[in-house]
Amino acid sequence: MARYEIFVTYKQGIFDPPGATAERALLNLGYEGVDSVKIGKFIQLEADADQAAVAAMCDKLLANPVIEDYRIERVEE
Amino acid sequence: MARYEIFVTYKQGIFDPPGATAERALLNLGYEGVDSVKIGKFIQLEADADQAAVAAMCDKLLANPVIEDYRIERVEE
Repeated sequence: MARYEIFVTYKQGIFDPPGATAERALLNLGYEGVDSVKIGKFIQLEADADQAAVAAMCDKLLANPVIEDYRIERVEE
Repeated sequence: MARYEIFVTYKQGIFDPPGATAERALLNLGYEGVDSVKIGKFIQLEADADQAAVAAMCDKLLANPVIEDYRIERVEE
């Protein structure tokens, strides 16, 4: 059984509505030092699968490759 | 300006609907080796703020401390 962490982010230039909302809300709360907030997905996967299989899972289901990038890291025990 | 990465995950024992849905969908797609999928948030923050201020932002807005844990990492340039 292998453990993976997958980081899914919007591609450069794609609008990130949750990030934009959080950024505005933080400024409204008085955190004037905030310059940029981007919100993506953090997926923790445990599977009997190699990294190529995990990439296929990302392409098919866990990310939207049209608008999102992903990075897969295998977590050592 | 500092860059932070924030990992927001459900606390132990809290039901994770997106993760459960993705897990079932991957099994339905034929990935029988999948044992567990948890889906949280991956936040990239750029701000003129120290780590304590970022933790306050998480407590107030970026995470829900009742049901979620978060981990903050400062990204070195």
